[in-house]
Amino acid sequence: MKVGIIGATGYGGLELIRFLHNHPEVEKIDLFTSSDEGTVFSSRFGHLLTIHDEPLKKIGVNTLSNFDVIFTSTPSGVTSKLLPPLVGVGPKLIDLSGDYRLKNPHDYEKWYKKDSAPTELLKDSVYGLTEWNEEEVKKASLIANPGCYPTAVLLSILPFIKEKLIDPSYLIIDAKSGISGAGNKPSQATHFSEANENFSIYKINEHQHIPEIEQAIDLFAGVKTTISFNTHLVPMTRGILATTYAPIFEGVTEEQLIDCLLDTYKNNPFVRIVTDVNSIGTNRVKGSNFCDILVKLDKRTNRVTIIGVIDNLVKGAAGQAIQNMNVQFGLPQTDGLDVVPLFI
Amino acid sequence: MKVGIIGATGYGGLELIRFLHNHPEVEKIDLFTSSDEGTVFSSRFGHLLTIHDEPLKKIGVNTLSNFDVIFTSTPSGVTSKLLPPLVGVGPKLIDLSGDYRLKNPHDYEKWYKKDSAPTELLKDSVYGLTEWNEEEVKKASLIANPGCYPTAVLLSILPFIKEKLIDPSYLIIDAKSGISGAGNKPSQATHFSEANENFSIYKINEHQHIPEIEQAIDLFAGVKTTISFNTHLVPMTRGILATTYAPIFEGVTEEQLIDCLLDTYKNNPFVRIVTDVNSIGTNRVKGSNFCDILVKLDKRTNRVTIIGVIDNLVKGAAGQAIQNMNVQFGLPQTDGLDVVPLFI
Amino acid sequence: MKVGIIGATGYGGLELIRFLHNHPEVEKIDLFTSSDEGTVFSSRFGHLLTIHDEPLKKIGVNTLSNFDVIFTSTPSGVTSKLLPPLVGVGPKLIDLSGDYRLKNPHDYEKWYKKDSAPTELLKDSVYGLTEWNEEEVKKASLIANPGCYPTAVLLSILPFIKEKLIDPSYLIIDAKSGISGAGNKPSQATHFSEANENFSIYKINEHQHIPEIEQAIDLFAGVKTTISFNTHLVPMTRGILATTYAPIFEGVTEEQLIDCLLDTYKNNPFVRIVTDVNSIGTNRVKGSNFCDILVKLDKRTNRVTIIGVIDNLVKGAAGQAIQNMNVQFGLPQTDGLDVVPLFI
Amino acid sequence: MKVGIIGATGYGGLELIRFLHNHPEVEKIDLFTSSDEGTVFSSRFGHLLTIHDEPLKKIGVNTLSNFDVIFTSTPSGVTSKLLPPLVGVGPKLIDLSGDYRLKNPHDYEKWYKKDSAPTELLKDSVYGLTEWNEEEVKKASLIANPGCYPTAVLLSILPFIKEKLIDPSYLIIDAKSGISGAGNKPSQATHFSEANENFSIYKINEHQHIPEIEQAIDLFAGVKTTISFNTHLVPMTRGILATTYAPIFEGVTEEQLIDCLLDTYKNNPFVRIVTDVNSIGTNRVKGSNFCDILVKLDKRTNRVTIIGVIDNLVKGAAGQAIQNMNVQFGLPQTDGLDVVPLFI
Repeated sequence: MKVGIIGATGYGGLELIRFLHNHPEVEKIDLFTSSDEGTVFSSRFGHLLTIHDEPLKKIGVNTLSNFDVIFTSTPSGVTSKLLPPLVGVGPKLIDLSGDYRLKNPHDYEKWYKKDSAPTELLKDSVYGLTEWNEEEVKKASLIANPGCYPTAVLLSILPFIKEKLIDPSYLIIDAKSGISGAGNKPSQATHFSEANENFSIYKINEHQHIPEIEQAIDLFAGVKTTISFNTHLVPMTRGILATTYAPIFEGVTEEQLIDCLLDTYKNNPFVRIVTDVNSIGTNRVKGSNFCDILVKLDKRTNRVTIIGVIDNLVKGAAGQAIQNMNVQFGLPQTDGLDVVPLFI
Repeated sequence: MKVGIIGATGYGGLELIRFLHNHPEVEKIDLFTSSDEGTVFSSRFGHLLTIHDEPLKKIGVNTLSNFDVIFTSTPSGVTSKLLPPLVGVGPKLIDLSGDYRLKNPHDYEKWYKKDSAPTELLKDSVYGLTEWNEEEVKKASLIANPGCYPTAVLLSILPFIKEKLIDPSYLIIDAKSGISGAGNKPSQATHFSEANENFSIYKINEHQHIPEIEQAIDLFAGVKTTISFNTHLVPMTRGILATTYAPIFEGVTEEQLIDCLLDTYKNNPFVRIVTDVNSIGTNRVKGSNFCDILVKLDKRTNRVTIIGVIDNLVKGAAGQAIQNMNVQFGLPQTDGLDVVPLFI
Repeated sequence: MKVGIIGATGYGGLELIRFLHNHPEVEKIDLFTSSDEGTVFSSRFGHLLTIHDEPLKKIGVNTLSNFDVIFTSTPSGVTSKLLPPLVGVGPKLIDLSGDYRLKNPHDYEKWYKKDSAPTELLKDSVYGLTEWNEEEVKKASLIANPGCYPTAVLLSILPFIKEKLIDPSYLIIDAKSGISGAGNKPSQATHFSEANENFSIYKINEHQHIPEIEQAIDLFAGVKTTISFNTHLVPMTRGILATTYAPIFEGVTEEQLIDCLLDTYKNNPFVRIVTDVNSIGTNRVKGSNFCDILVKLDKRTNRVTIIGVIDNLVKGAAGQAIQNMNVQFGLPQTDGLDVVPLFI
Repeated sequence: MKVGIIGATGYGGLELIRFLHNHPEVEKIDLFTSSDEGTVFSSRFGHLLTIHDEPLKKIGVNTLSNFDVIFTSTPSGVTSKLLPPLVGVGPKLIDLSGDYRLKNPHDYEKWYKKDSAPTELLKDSVYGLTEWNEEEVKKASLIANPGCYPTAVLLSILPFIKEKLIDPSYLIIDAKSGISGAGNKPSQATHFSEANENFSIYKINEHQHIPEIEQAIDLFAGVKTTISFNTHLVPMTRGILATTYAPIFEGVTEEQLIDCLLDTYKNNPFVRIVTDVNSIGTNRVKGSNFCDILVKLDKRTNRVTIIGVIDNLVKGAAGQAIQNMNVQFGLPQTDGLDVVPLFI
């Protein structure tokens, strides 16, 4: 397989390169850019010395049409314009940005404050939450790869909503992310001396992943709801941990909740059900495509605490994108992704 | 004033030493220990070289009775036994441990899984949440200094509960703390290589600060409620940020909420009301006795997001303890505590 | 005393504000800017809310002449132009930038690659390494506050060179700094995700502090030498540790070396001689004006290892500047600086 | 191939597991312990859930003899006793501890302060610095895998000593390591709150890697010398950067130095020669088996600065051990090790 990556200089792009390097079916990886044409890639990213010493290539429809798959890992607002001419000309398209996730263009414009992608393409694009949408992904030509927060949240709460174990009308989702989620562009908030040793909250009640989560709850569990969702910045590089609180429906037991998880994900290699609270944390999935999930029932309040943990750059971005590629091409989901987390 | 510190080797003790060093009314600071008698303090804590080169002293009622105030900063289960003989013999007692916070001994035994302090002393002790209990603190001979999490949570939510702006029956409190909150005793979970770059949750729905918060909501706002409360470990040393979600009562506006905060704390030098979300974070209070509070109303859900931020070792421990001492001795609350946060 | 700070938005400026806030003789602190006139200071730096809510003032000779002392904490190349009109008009001037440190304008131009300050002013300025230049500092109207690295290096090695215990012709100085030394301007190298968990070297053999160190060795120990000096970036915010290697002169013992340190600094409150290797490290001086020094003789090689440790923003910048101000005004050196290091 | 790991709970052991998981020729990995027999491995190390859920096995000669290769990753002083009965009974032995590195038992006893391994085995063991000892490694039945610091130092300085470009009589080696090098056992010095934001030096002139480096300089470059070598602790988890200073022999140019590196390592996939100082740092090799090397000549002093960078747990431990296994079994050196560094 021949793979092209647009947006290789972003952190999602770097992780695509890292995993595709060890993918058994990928024989060629080309890196494209809109602005740094000709730059030797390893001169900007020293860790790729001897691995990607070739210059960045210019984006062009002709060149791109010869690839089997194109990953786009760009800031929001780029692929809404970049991808339309590439649809149908050959390569499968997997977009890691938010531009094709929201089906309703008004939602995109409201939350992203940018122009939406063409409505038709929004309709045709497939939301690539692999574990919940495998059949659609198989057939898709344009995949909207899920956001990092939605991946951690949805994988951990969808089973309970679908099986009517928790009340979806009062979902409080408190999410925390490592700073790599803010991307590779320097700013005061991500300047080491000001981000280090600081825990903060941002975009209170205004994060663009809110409508994405609500849409997916409707899509996969058939429930329309309005969630409370907030995001915090953790002084570390990688990892998301999302804590969700919800009331249970009467009589539900912790055993039922755990069984629901085990049953839902029994054939999914990347979702692990954790029962020991001392065994869950972002470093348990670091560098890997795993999503770890834990649920606890609080009998004092009859509310559950649900934890979903991922590496935001892997299962929350590049890893899930490759997992989707594997499904599209009929390969085992684990091709190129069967790695042990780093832990330390 | 002559001050004694029992438990000087803990992080709360070290912060007491740091602030009392610059307290205008404190002329003598003696350090006591139950186990390391004779150890030169600065040989264990190099940062105190030339400042505290004297040996640790042995704890004894006779010696301790000559002090004006004794701070105890020990693990739970120690002062329940240590303090009874010292009550009434002279010094004001300020206990930074959890042993005198819960009025009901059964609550202590249930949540701390240890023997409670004598019921009579529990009755007489005063809960030292300074801003909410100043009159009682003035008269107290034994102060139960609040826990770190309860301080951040209570200061940020009590105004709204008391003024009936939010519904206290559905409080979701998601708290995050730097690792110094786990104390100075090495363990696998606080071993650098395993704690670094890891965000985790612990004691799900079982933290001993739960009954403390519920008791204080009853005491200061007259409301009995059952809260959801969880605690997370952030890979940084200092700081607590607590995020609380609650439904508003119908018709409440964000302006009302902010006014409520401004009004409640208008004469309190250590509580700051923040309105810009980019200006709140643990590094804004680092090393200081400030508690920063921010509230946002989410009109989509009619729920509020309330943020309370403190330095867990200062306002959450040593700083508030000294603030209480100041109140007990009729000094300005800011004596010894009027410092600028470090930020970086 | 009335104090003006130019460059208050830099990290050196922020530390000046932090310490001057508690200085017993300072009654007024005004903050000046060349570009952000009118900006409410605490809206940019939330940690100063309720402390510095006033707007930044415009720099002007008339306004500045009324102050007792002006601190300039600006990037290199600014005060070479800014200060000349202020010399002699009233306030003592303390420059934290490198513009007045090198006596030879060609050295400045070579190492800083910028235009030098006027030669006359270079001649008149006094190098403010307080412990080694107190008499000159007392009389100075323009102080060139030492660089962060030179402070850690010079305080730790000058005694041995002056007393002819080590051979100054083969000094290898390997220095390491926290990232705050790179200033407050965001860049790729200081972007959290790329600086975190990374230890690197920079400006190999080209750091502008090289001529400053060599000049001061000549000035204070009467020796002309050429040093090897390199600087590394440590993934932490504050602190410098400099490790120097040098051959001893024949027959010198470790006891002589330690005695030399003790003797040199016996009346200096901010220099501490450490003998236990487990008691030296950047967190032992964090947030304070201390310089900790340790020396070990390696009998296998007849070379010494000398360690100098400071907080780069305090003894390496703002703290030493205030120490110099105290000396200029005949105050105790410790005024406003007598604080306990944070340690954690 | 069947592989056994003794000491799987250490950080070296965990990295062996991580890399062997993706090794094309390894079909079975068994984990052994001297103390925790029966413990389900993933219950202690949550990141291995679903990957190593089997219990730890008891160490026994009979069991171990059936493996093709045994890795021992234990504290010093263990394999000196553990390995002798296993020599010659079947499996290739690769020891990651220091017990078989020093040829002279007195050196071991002096620097490690423990009993040495049997002299005969010391004689037969092969020092596994792969790039410099490939022919011996091929034939070895017992490999002493190099220490982390010696790997970074030797790979970066040996070429220049062997080619007589630098003067080996005055080598100053200043090394810095992430905290994982201190192992997985909690202590005060590695307790998060005390290790975080702290840069320190340890074991001044007494590190046990000193004789190992001197012995290897003699072995591979035929030079007996006495080095200055110090080690520092960096507040990050992974990575070593070693900075070496040495005088050049007269007339040597930087070009010659770089050519020497390029020539020495032209056929070695894991050594990369870096020429841009902005492209060298521990995160450029993180998680990989690369050693990055950079050399700069300082014309002012006629001394070189040589930088060697590795991931201490990979090229400095598990990675190099697997590289040695590959050589022993005639496999490509890159089998199982051809991964892209994480960078962030």
